[in-house]
Amino acid sequence: MNDVKAQAYEQLCALRHGVVEIVSEEELLGKLERSLRTGVPLRVKLGADPSAPDLHLGHTVVLRKLRQFQDLGHQVIFLIGDFTGMIGDPTGRSETRKPLSVEEIQANATTYKKQIFRILDQSRTEIRFNSEWLNQMGFTDVIRLAAQYTVARLLERDDFQKRYREGRPIGVHEFLYPLAQGHDSVVLRADVELGGTDQKFNLLVGRELQRDHGQEPQVALITPLLEGTDGVQKMSKSLGNYIGIDEPAREVYGKTMSIPDALIVKYAELVAGMSPDAIEAMEEGLKLGTLHPRSAKADVARRLVALYHGEQAADEAAHEFDRIFREKRLPDVILEFQVPEGHIDQEEGIKNTVPLAWLIAASSGAKSISEAKRLIRQGGVSLDGEVIRDEYAKVPTDQEYVLRVGKRFFRRIKKSIQPRKNT
Amino acid sequence: MNDVKAQAYEQLCALRHGVVEIVSEEELLGKLERSLRTGVPLRVKLGADPSAPDLHLGHTVVLRKLRQFQDLGHQVIFLIGDFTGMIGDPTGRSETRKPLSVEEIQANATTYKKQIFRILDQSRTEIRFNSEWLNQMGFTDVIRLAAQYTVARLLERDDFQKRYREGRPIGVHEFLYPLAQGHDSVVLRADVELGGTDQKFNLLVGRELQRDHGQEPQVALITPLLEGTDGVQKMSKSLGNYIGIDEPAREVYGKTMSIPDALIVKYAELVAGMSPDAIEAMEEGLKLGTLHPRSAKADVARRLVALYHGEQAADEAAHEFDRIFREKRLPDVILEFQVPEGHIDQEEGIKNTVPLAWLIAASSGAKSISEAKRLIRQGGVSLDGEVIRDEYAKVPTDQEYVLRVGKRFFRRIKKSIQPRKNT
Repeated sequence: MNDVKAQAYEQLCALRHGVVEIVSEEELLGKLERSLRTGVPLRVKLGADPSAPDLHLGHTVVLRKLRQFQDLGHQVIFLIGDFTGMIGDPTGRSETRKPLSVEEIQANATTYKKQIFRILDQSRTEIRFNSEWLNQMGFTDVIRLAAQYTVARLLERDDFQKRYREGRPIGVHEFLYPLAQGHDSVVLRADVELGGTDQKFNLLVGRELQRDHGQEPQVALITPLLEGTDGVQKMSKSLGNYIGIDEPAREVYGKTMSIPDALIVKYAELVAGMSPDAIEAMEEGLKLGTLHPRSAKADVARRLVALYHGEQAADEAAHEFDRIFREKRLPDVILEFQVPEGHIDQEEGIKNTVPLAWLIAASSGAKSISEAKRLIRQGGVSLDGEVIRDEYAKVPTDQEYVLRVGKRFFRRIKKSIQPRKNT
Repeated sequence: MNDVKAQAYEQLCALRHGVVEIVSEEELLGKLERSLRTGVPLRVKLGADPSAPDLHLGHTVVLRKLRQFQDLGHQVIFLIGDFTGMIGDPTGRSETRKPLSVEEIQANATTYKKQIFRILDQSRTEIRFNSEWLNQMGFTDVIRLAAQYTVARLLERDDFQKRYREGRPIGVHEFLYPLAQGHDSVVLRADVELGGTDQKFNLLVGRELQRDHGQEPQVALITPLLEGTDGVQKMSKSLGNYIGIDEPAREVYGKTMSIPDALIVKYAELVAGMSPDAIEAMEEGLKLGTLHPRSAKADVARRLVALYHGEQAADEAAHEFDRIFREKRLPDVILEFQVPEGHIDQEEGIKNTVPLAWLIAASSGAKSISEAKRLIRQGGVSLDGEVIRDEYAKVPTDQEYVLRVGKRFFRRIKKSIQPRKNT
């Protein structure tokens, strides 16, 4: 008996790692204990939007948590919310929520399956569609469902509250969606439901509906949202700040290398599958300065590629990235060169352009204008990475750019502080 | 053409008589004109609650208005809202809204028909049940319906607003009822919907849903609520202040005679079927004092009985009432008698009772206590109409009542101003 308690507690400790909130830990502990005692696995639900089947790292946060449940012997129910997908946005306001056909939903489901089983254990995954029961419901059933919740409580949901206060419309049908989602938990007899922080309210609705149906309420396990490569917004395909798990290895590696340093540990913890100990060591190294952020990031990037493309692909991606990076990278410090104010072009008087060859010589990239012209002809000169081969090229003086001459000469060309007079 | 315009205007004038509000008169005028021009009658809808089929005068306000539409050639749709009746109150909170069986609803419908056709013209009445279409609706249809309206607009409805502000619960299903009612108008292609002032919001919802469906919005015709015999509350069976149209003639007559004077004209106008001219004359007479309120009330009462029981029954009821009234009535002015403070009962010291015989003598109802006792024994003494035959009876001095001795002696016995000391 005490052994079961200890085991359950161990499971709880593993499960709460990298989680924002569990409502409630005591209830989860009780369920884990009972499962260990009876041998009946917990039913762990995740709802998925049927319209966006391309998984990115943002999705894997919760999928990896599901996998952890599976590794502990529990059953996952991957619920595809096709019911609302088939309706689309009935107000016609949203472009992105056009109704999906049954064929589209089936196709999306196939894509989903292919992708989620790169993380989930297929033998412990049940895939369901909520149209199975929601499509059977008549108006009477909907009224009974709606009667289980009050308007005031739905208006407490952050986004509803905000829109109501700001006078932005909330369609009455939007009040039915959280209830439908909660009803799914009743039908599926979920023990646990996972979701991001933006799903917390809906997960709690499920708890109450289950209680109303005489079921033990599900535990709500809230996973953090993952910021995208921009480091600011939630990772999302439409924002372009995503890293797709089906992207080529070098893309996954390169995009990961582009995340801000502040996100390294979060990525390591939530999506790269690093052990708690390794994460702790990384955090410590970054804090003390004994680990360079670039190395930590490379470690995360390598692990991510290894997860979805294997070790060999990870090695190759790392080497490839380093090679390109070494060749292409700009020095950490680039001297500046400011175009003299009111520069007079010999041919055209006062102008907002200067000849490129003149600029090279003036900024010490060549000993003379003629040497500069030769370098240009040889293809050894670039502006912001674009090679310029015209020795008579003129460049604007009201913009900033990086001038590169040969392999090692760089100047950040600054525009004149005073605008040049126009003739 | 101008003839049609004039006729339509005449119809409008008749229809707006005794009505609180028409949204809008212009639209109704347009519809009346078109009906006259095309010969297609307007479709005039009234929704009825299936749970209370006993019609009382409160219901007849709107039914008489429907009859007026019929007399102008229009078609009435009497819609029995059996759909929600079959659900009852899904929260289980309301005792009075238990779900009705199909048999009960059918039985109620039969009762309804029997009663409404005492006012409506059967040949121009279509009876429908909204379960016909609402029962067919699935969750998807409900979502589409709900998407047509916003939460904020439903919260504008007076009662919702009040409950929301006061923190009293509004079930989400309650938001679906006005939408269902509005949808009825779409299905029935109603030109006009009638309802009491408490229905105004729901009638306006119907207008918007019709507009969303590309239909011309129905005109909302709002009838006043009728106060019951207490003169304060809306007439309702549960409050006991109602006059049922199926009640015996003498009940209808007597209850009408019991309404407060302030309601006479309203009853005359809304339920007694008096012509506008007759009403004006009555109002004038009451104002100038040339018509006694009792006579006006008798006129209304007589007309009401005649409407539902015929002329002969009306005459009989009037005669019967007058006879009983004359026999039973108390004088307009009754002298008061106040029990002396601290009255000492000879046998029991200071008490809150006095012997009835003493009270009669003391208030001049008899020349002596012994005469009073004799009158009591003979059954000539009553308190508040109840005959007392015990010559030793004691009566409380801390209550008020009317003492009657013989046919003509009355005293209003007042309690002592100062409470009597207890021994």
